[in-house]
Amino acid sequence: MEELIQKLRKFAEERDWDQFHSPKNLVMALSVEVSEIVEHFQWLTPEQSQELSPDKLSELKDEIGDVLIYLIRLADKLGIDPINAALEKIEKNGKKYPVVRVKGKSLKYTEY
Amino acid sequence: MEELIQKLRKFAEERDWDQFHSPKNLVMALSVEVSEIVEHFQWLTPEQSQELSPDKLSELKDEIGDVLIYLIRLADKLGIDPINAALEKIEKNGKKYPVVRVKGKSLKYTEY
Amino acid sequence: MEELIQKLRKFAEERDWDQFHSPKNLVMALSVEVSEIVEHFQWLTPEQSQELSPDKLSELKDEIGDVLIYLIRLADKLGIDPINAALEKIEKNGKKYPVVRVKGKSLKYTEY
Amino acid sequence: MEELIQKLRKFAEERDWDQFHSPKNLVMALSVEVSEIVEHFQWLTPEQSQELSPDKLSELKDEIGDVLIYLIRLADKLGIDPINAALEKIEKNGKKYPVVRVKGKSLKYTEY
Repeated sequence: MEELIQKLRKFAEERDWDQFHSPKNLVMALSVEVSEIVEHFQWLTPEQSQELSPDKLSELKDEIGDVLIYLIRLADKLGIDPINAALEKIEKNGKKYPVVRVKGKSLKYTEY
Repeated sequence: MEELIQKLRKFAEERDWDQFHSPKNLVMALSVEVSEIVEHFQWLTPEQSQELSPDKLSELKDEIGDVLIYLIRLADKLGIDPINAALEKIEKNGKKYPVVRVKGKSLKYTEY
Repeated sequence: MEELIQKLRKFAEERDWDQFHSPKNLVMALSVEVSEIVEHFQWLTPEQSQELSPDKLSELKDEIGDVLIYLIRLADKLGIDPINAALEKIEKNGKKYPVVRVKGKSLKYTEY
Repeated sequence: MEELIQKLRKFAEERDWDQFHSPKNLVMALSVEVSEIVEHFQWLTPEQSQELSPDKLSELKDEIGDVLIYLIRLADKLGIDPINAALEKIEKNGKKYPVVRVKGKSLKYTEY
């Protein structure tokens, strides 16, 4: 992860792109990259989404790479460590959704 | 990163939530979490987006954690290593946008 | 539609909110509102998404209202007539996806 | 608007595409189309976003058409009248954000 952060800083510096990388712009770019993943799945059934061809998986690998790139850039600009943020969030989520209450039939998922 | 992947697998298994975690559903959840970041920035100027209060940064840390959580879950379900995907994508982007051609005034950014 | 455009102009003027309503900001707000709809559907099966409760439909009516509000504001700021844009786009789509070629098994949908 | 709804029903029926148009799938498609608009604006300053070239405006007209198309399809499948939904939502928003309290400096916009 640290290697990624450094590479992305260098990538932007070399191209003088920091001027474009305000958090506001980066979050827009992040949302665009996520939508490119959504596009792959929009017409598939949930079942089909679990059985993708090698070609589709290869395209999705690129898209997932792009999402992580922009997420790291955004976090870097905000001074946030994304791995640490995720670890702390898992702790919080564990308290919010205790196993005994949500197992297999979480209110979150069954309120519809 | 490997620790995160393992924790998230355990989190879903304990709650019997794998049944909800098709790639199609996970990418929808990912896009919703990204939008929660977008919401923080929608009315800010690019300059304001660079000077956030500690309270806002703390909220954004949680949101960034959530985005990374769903990105890792999605990649795990697809059998994709997200760090590797990002490293390979940086290579590709380096060839697509060579420094000498795009420095400070990339067509990508100035075609408007 | 014309009534909506006028009401939304008046709404923003009365609140002195035009200063915030650049196209860039409005499209971010539009994407946030769409995600509020996505959130309702993320864990549902396609079948469940067709059998929503009256309460859910009432919430979705509000969300759809918000999406149309921001779409109209954005179009108004860009000098675009959204109804006319949709009518012309249907024409284009009809040529792009001729019935004889795509019926029931469009490449668009079955390339996975 | 009624003409649009009818045309879009006919368009899907002729192509036997209703099978793909569950609300879940339609909202994914709607979010993808919105992101195509976001993509046009991601690297622009708010000021640049107000001075687009005729070529860009022509592309954006197509994108706005697509967003309205999917919004209408989604609303139609849910039995919701989008114009009516927007009119009612403007009423609600007027009560939520009274002029006297939010003029020019809404908490909504200035809490950062």
